[in-house]
Amino acid sequence: MAIQAISWSPSGAVRIIDQRALPEAEITRDLESAESVADAIRQLQVRGAPLIGIAAAMGLVAAMREQRTAAVNLRWALDRMVRVAEGTPGEGADLWERLRVEATAIWEEDRAMCRQIGEHGLTILADGAKVLTHCNTGALATGGIGTGLAPIYLAHEQGRKVHVYVGETRPLLQGSRLTMWELMHAGISCTLITDAAAANLMRQAKVDAILVGADRICANGDFANKIGTYGLAVLARHHGVPFYCAAPWSTVDAALAEGDLIPIEQRAAAEVTVMAGRPIAPDGAAALNLAFDVTPARYVTGFITDRGIVQPPFAA
Amino acid sequence: MAIQAISWSPSGAVRIIDQRALPEAEITRDLESAESVADAIRQLQVRGAPLIGIAAAMGLVAAMREQRTAAVNLRWALDRMVRVAEGTPGEGADLWERLRVEATAIWEEDRAMCRQIGEHGLTILADGAKVLTHCNTGALATGGIGTGLAPIYLAHEQGRKVHVYVGETRPLLQGSRLTMWELMHAGISCTLITDAAAANLMRQAKVDAILVGADRICANGDFANKIGTYGLAVLARHHGVPFYCAAPWSTVDAALAEGDLIPIEQRAAAEVTVMAGRPIAPDGAAALNLAFDVTPARYVTGFITDRGIVQPPFAA
Repeated sequence: MAIQAISWSPSGAVRIIDQRALPEAEITRDLESAESVADAIRQLQVRGAPLIGIAAAMGLVAAMREQRTAAVNLRWALDRMVRVAEGTPGEGADLWERLRVEATAIWEEDRAMCRQIGEHGLTILADGAKVLTHCNTGALATGGIGTGLAPIYLAHEQGRKVHVYVGETRPLLQGSRLTMWELMHAGISCTLITDAAAANLMRQAKVDAILVGADRICANGDFANKIGTYGLAVLARHHGVPFYCAAPWSTVDAALAEGDLIPIEQRAAAEVTVMAGRPIAPDGAAALNLAFDVTPARYVTGFITDRGIVQPPFAA
Repeated sequence: MAIQAISWSPSGAVRIIDQRALPEAEITRDLESAESVADAIRQLQVRGAPLIGIAAAMGLVAAMREQRTAAVNLRWALDRMVRVAEGTPGEGADLWERLRVEATAIWEEDRAMCRQIGEHGLTILADGAKVLTHCNTGALATGGIGTGLAPIYLAHEQGRKVHVYVGETRPLLQGSRLTMWELMHAGISCTLITDAAAANLMRQAKVDAILVGADRICANGDFANKIGTYGLAVLARHHGVPFYCAAPWSTVDAALAEGDLIPIEQRAAAEVTVMAGRPIAPDGAAALNLAFDVTPARYVTGFITDRGIVQPPFAA
């Protein structure tokens, strides 16, 4: 059983798992205010693009519990929520209830979307398949059973044997801290490796497929994802290993023609030079810490979406 | 100026830098006994194949200071030392002095060898060159200015601008802890990256050459080196980046036909799952921790040795 990364608390707060503390501690937090949800997102207590969207939507509702007649905080400007708000005359309890229904619907749709990705992705996972994944694209990144991990959860549910090699995903170790935790929690066979060990596994023919997620997919199929994804794609091509990108169809940004147009976020050097509060590089060491890289579409065997396994170009 | 990883203390002990403590602390240790040198090697206080050989030779001499008439401890069975011992009649002070001369000669030869590698490697480093390296193949791994880093030290010495991208080299972080430290100590421009970020740098044409070391080179040119080397070689080929292996000619094991014959050491899972004493993966997580991988000769642009930049096959 995949864990549930987000839910309503009995009192109507947004209940999350603090992902920073994993896997050492399983800390559940009930977020009551807009600020606490914003802080949780900023501090990476919740992470994963789908989950952040859901948390923002649900947080908007939770925040308004105590101020049902107050003006809507548009900081997260969620189109759907705004449309509901705009379509609802009056203020107060009625608006709040409709936003709650809408936020819950967004969550339910996400859960269904995850299962659809899983169903389509199942076709690539034979019994005994060995899959390599990177970062965390599972139940901790969505409202449901994940994107990249969804096919693996469903294969396991159906009794197929699967084994997952999990790249630790430096610098923030989402692979070792989060993916290993949720796969072990679900009883799915998994082995942690350092990121640089992936090439050797492929050379030894120990990887049948690679499954990664996507932060953003361009019209031509180029996509942005956690740093290291591009290297895996090149290595997969070189070794003849199928390389799949699993993501909700909504990740496609048809207005963005190609990957070179995506600006790449540079994050703090300290994420690379400091580990668990201890320096692991010399004082003053310069570090280049890019959040993600761009993988050209030509390296992708297929995009596993809730609409099926598809190929670019993607129209709006 | 490169640091000096090993030397004689004024009292005749083997003086080393405890590489476990780098870069947080620069701890010098004087090893007085055979046991302390063996412990230092086991505990990775000294590391790098050339340096271990030198430490063993020098340790043999230091250990015998107090027991000049005692039997030679053959635990490290260094051929040269044994030959000197065998060729020297009698015991005691005379034998010790000859072993000391021999151990010092081994060290001096290593220093000269490093410079020769540097001189030959200089030809591939134009002014302004950007080089990517992995693990530590520098002054901390040899008695001199290193193997893979030797051309970089010499280029810097001659006033050429060079920039070094240093892969952190998980799990033991020899790149961030050691290579960054010695390059910064020498005033050489360097930037730390996570191992998985290398592919993106190559795609952005920010790498002019890759320089790595070798633990063992086969007759056909396949070579073993720190895990991650093989992946860099494949990525270099894909992006048209020259890929060089720098090593003493003595690293060639002409009796070993090809890389598939090299057994790959598996190290403790805890090196991957625990960092700085803190768990970074769930309790009980399985981890595959291979010490090195094998890179087939066809990926190597050239082998930079003390005898020149050479190509396989290598005869005995």
